[in-house]
Amino acid sequence: MNRARENPKAHSFFESLASFTSGTDTPREFLERCIASVEQYEPRVRAFATFNFAGARSAADSASKRWRSGHPLSAIDGMPVGVKDIMETADMPTEQGSPLFAGWHGRRDAAAVAALREAGAVILGKTVTTEFAAAAPGRTRNPWDMERTPGGSSSGSAAAVAAGMVPAALGSQVVGSAIRPASFCGCYGYKPTIGGINRGGSFDEFSQSCTSVMAASLAEAWSVAKEICMRAGGDPGFPGIAGPVAVPSVKKPERVALIRTAGWAQASDGAKNALQQATERIAASGAAVIEAPDDRALQAVEAALVDAYSLTMDINAWEGRWPLNTYARDMGNERLSEHAQQRLAAGNAMTLEKYGRLIKERDRVRSIYENLGGHVDMCITLSATGEAPLGLSSTGNPVFAVPASLLGVPALSLPVLSIAGLPLGLQVIGFRNEDAALFAFANGLLDLFEGVIHG
Amino acid sequence: MNRARENPKAHSFFESLASFTSGTDTPREFLERCIASVEQYEPRVRAFATFNFAGARSAADSASKRWRSGHPLSAIDGMPVGVKDIMETADMPTEQGSPLFAGWHGRRDAAAVAALREAGAVILGKTVTTEFAAAAPGRTRNPWDMERTPGGSSSGSAAAVAAGMVPAALGSQVVGSAIRPASFCGCYGYKPTIGGINRGGSFDEFSQSCTSVMAASLAEAWSVAKEICMRAGGDPGFPGIAGPVAVPSVKKPERVALIRTAGWAQASDGAKNALQQATERIAASGAAVIEAPDDRALQAVEAALVDAYSLTMDINAWEGRWPLNTYARDMGNERLSEHAQQRLAAGNAMTLEKYGRLIKERDRVRSIYENLGGHVDMCITLSATGEAPLGLSSTGNPVFAVPASLLGVPALSLPVLSIAGLPLGLQVIGFRNEDAALFAFANGLLDLFEGVIHG
Repeated sequence: MNRARENPKAHSFFESLASFTSGTDTPREFLERCIASVEQYEPRVRAFATFNFAGARSAADSASKRWRSGHPLSAIDGMPVGVKDIMETADMPTEQGSPLFAGWHGRRDAAAVAALREAGAVILGKTVTTEFAAAAPGRTRNPWDMERTPGGSSSGSAAAVAAGMVPAALGSQVVGSAIRPASFCGCYGYKPTIGGINRGGSFDEFSQSCTSVMAASLAEAWSVAKEICMRAGGDPGFPGIAGPVAVPSVKKPERVALIRTAGWAQASDGAKNALQQATERIAASGAAVIEAPDDRALQAVEAALVDAYSLTMDINAWEGRWPLNTYARDMGNERLSEHAQQRLAAGNAMTLEKYGRLIKERDRVRSIYENLGGHVDMCITLSATGEAPLGLSSTGNPVFAVPASLLGVPALSLPVLSIAGLPLGLQVIGFRNEDAALFAFANGLLDLFEGVIHG
Repeated sequence: MNRARENPKAHSFFESLASFTSGTDTPREFLERCIASVEQYEPRVRAFATFNFAGARSAADSASKRWRSGHPLSAIDGMPVGVKDIMETADMPTEQGSPLFAGWHGRRDAAAVAALREAGAVILGKTVTTEFAAAAPGRTRNPWDMERTPGGSSSGSAAAVAAGMVPAALGSQVVGSAIRPASFCGCYGYKPTIGGINRGGSFDEFSQSCTSVMAASLAEAWSVAKEICMRAGGDPGFPGIAGPVAVPSVKKPERVALIRTAGWAQASDGAKNALQQATERIAASGAAVIEAPDDRALQAVEAALVDAYSLTMDINAWEGRWPLNTYARDMGNERLSEHAQQRLAAGNAMTLEKYGRLIKERDRVRSIYENLGGHVDMCITLSATGEAPLGLSSTGNPVFAVPASLLGVPALSLPVLSIAGLPLGLQVIGFRNEDAALFAFANGLLDLFEGVIHG
């Protein structure tokens, strides 16, 4: 074992719900335990851009009273939550990981944040994002090993949950920004169906981006997303996440597709081995595991996903032209990262006509994947090519997270694999607007993975 | 004639293009003529929330140099443009017609504004909007009669164009916010296909809202929209406005559907009479004018549109829940208009499930309208129930503008009708993503309407 290796533990809020009801514990005491984890880890992990301890304590006290009186606002009443620092908060600045936005303070809550507060959640602070939720890393370290990246772009959200500073945090994913950091940090990561959670007030305009949730448990990932959605909806024009208020109950998947995707060639042997063992365990439970060589619909999906990464990056280049153009011109080109300047150059080199062709191609890939829907219950693959890499200058390889981003379908990273003492996610991918079914099947899989699988 | 009646005249920029090329006129001189109109009308019309004369003059001087050198950036290089005060501007505040946003300044350009500047356009100022681009009126008056409303919510944009202060201005439309003020003020109004113009950086989150253009001519309405779209695209995930850079050339419509919509019962006799005359002129030109009694597809459209207004308002209620909830809680409920407070109450009374049913119903109505597409070239109807009503406490009846908003299809208000010396628009409505065809047919119609038709 590396001597720098840590053993952080996420704090589940839901494990304490019964104690809140019986009065042996309170959300305020829960918050103080989170703050103790902040004191222990934050000086090294650096997951937060801003804290609001006073606001959080006051909100937790109000929640404690409501639980005591037997009338909590929701199951997440009093839950401490971190918010990725691309989403507006009335009580804190929103700095987007960029010096251009240092001190920027919009004075309102983003839709998801407003909904969280309505449900009683306690906003502990803003979590570190890469610059504009893209490639240039923030300062956050992986709580399992301070010399490794936590992944990105929702770096602080994943690290804060993994280190027990909050039981849940909001992130976003347009390429690999939720599934990858969840995998590297060993927490649950949930990227909903496209449009699933209202992005109003989030600096997040990409057509395949989606507000996402990191959490200490599957049930908390669901509840945070669902409680938001009931109060703020999905993106305007989208139906939002359908399903029950509490996490959908266990459903045993009968047909599971193992997809390798373009990431396979880049995955480590340990990661492949861990996935192989997981697959065997699923097969041993009685589910049929379908692989591409035996199935034409799956072959078509694998073929359609070969260029998922470059298609994603080309679409993002056009969609990122604004606001990068006004940031460069009106706010200071010299304070944009080289990454951002390169993306702007790529956007400037694009045309509306080329973009039109790209989104048609994405529609084509999506319809090929939809064909798989009546055919299998879910897909499984890795969440990342391996454990979090050493170094903080890159947030690691997003390749395994790209397919669900491009497809606009729900994905979860389940922290059930491990390599050399470091976490690795098993990714499960569902079908559009069937997020509840994905959770039910994921819940079914978790019964098979009581001990972590070491790759 | 009312003694308060005025006779404002829009300034066409395109009429001067040849003189810019020959050197007998310059964009700077054009701007000064616009500023002369500002001096003449603005004290009474109050179309602008903020001006940037110095910035505009400097930008116009740069454009003048480019025209002189024979290398303008685009056909709208040097064109003075007004920007509805819901869109961010790096050089001016964005106050949304609400005291909650007094002095609010985001320091970047909205996508459409950034694109306008890239094309060389001169941003003269921010035009008055109703509160949050909704119902509560701003201070703008109708330049034809200061005792009448200019319409809303893009009140200042329409009034500024009609009074010759700018040849074009950006607005938006979710219910009737572009077609209605264009009708009342007698300028061209263009609401594109849904998603046609990138709304990034505009406080405009409704699913059926669309950035729109008011202009002194049909060609300028097209060019402003298209030049933006080439540089900023449509909303992320949408193809944006397809078609040529210059306004599509004249195409004679062969089959025109006259739709009456739910507005018919509320239209004045004068308005109905003006539309009747326009219809006769179109028929006399050789086009077949189809009416619902003779056509089943059209009957289905009329039936599907009966509840267009209430469906629109219900959808908007859910989608407006945020940000009104955070404005009320975090910025000051007492400074929200009664209109806004009522809308928030309506949003609070909605559920995600109900919203899901509403957007399914909208999809159903849209598909019924799409069926008409292979069948007629365009639809015509009124832009408003009559001329601008007296009084500034309401922006008038939006009922005729609602169908195109709900359907997400392109619409134009052509200032070719008149009642008692006041303007009224002829509305032409096209089909999704066929904005260029609508302009070609509208261009064809204009040949028939050289003199205004008096109703």
